[in-house]
Amino acid sequence: MKAKIHVTLKQGILDPQGKAIEHALDSLGFNNAANVRVGKYMEVDLNETDRAKADAQVKRMCEQLLANTVVEEYRYELT
Amino acid sequence: MKAKIHVTLKQGILDPQGKAIEHALDSLGFNNAANVRVGKYMEVDLNETDRAKADAQVKRMCEQLLANTVVEEYRYELT
Repeated sequence: MKAKIHVTLKQGILDPQGKAIEHALDSLGFNNAANVRVGKYMEVDLNETDRAKADAQVKRMCEQLLANTVVEEYRYELT
Repeated sequence: MKAKIHVTLKQGILDPQGKAIEHALDSLGFNNAANVRVGKYMEVDLNETDRAKADAQVKRMCEQLLANTVVEEYRYELT
């Protein structure tokens, strides 16, 4: 199975990278862009055909390594 | 409108960050994870109600700033 994982900063957590992009967009003439938030997107191939097992595994991967759950949240799809 | 943008490395381009995650997963006991690819995920609020205009604008943002089209590809949805 393939897992598609999004890791994003929790609402309310300051996103300096997003702010930098917002300023860069502004200086390029895109004046109507706001609230830029930057996150990570990961694709992982899992050698696992059981959907429930794959789901539990991806959840553990996110909790243990891929996301810092103090400031980030994650979501994923399995395909 | 809100744009949800994914920027990923093109197929065939080496992804050292993905490889590092793969090794880290392996050492945590996730031995069946492979082909980890890491990309960026961005959300941008656009003060623009015309869908076609917003679309053209996001495309230009990606080409000019958000993606390095030599090694990266991008895709986006407008909601």
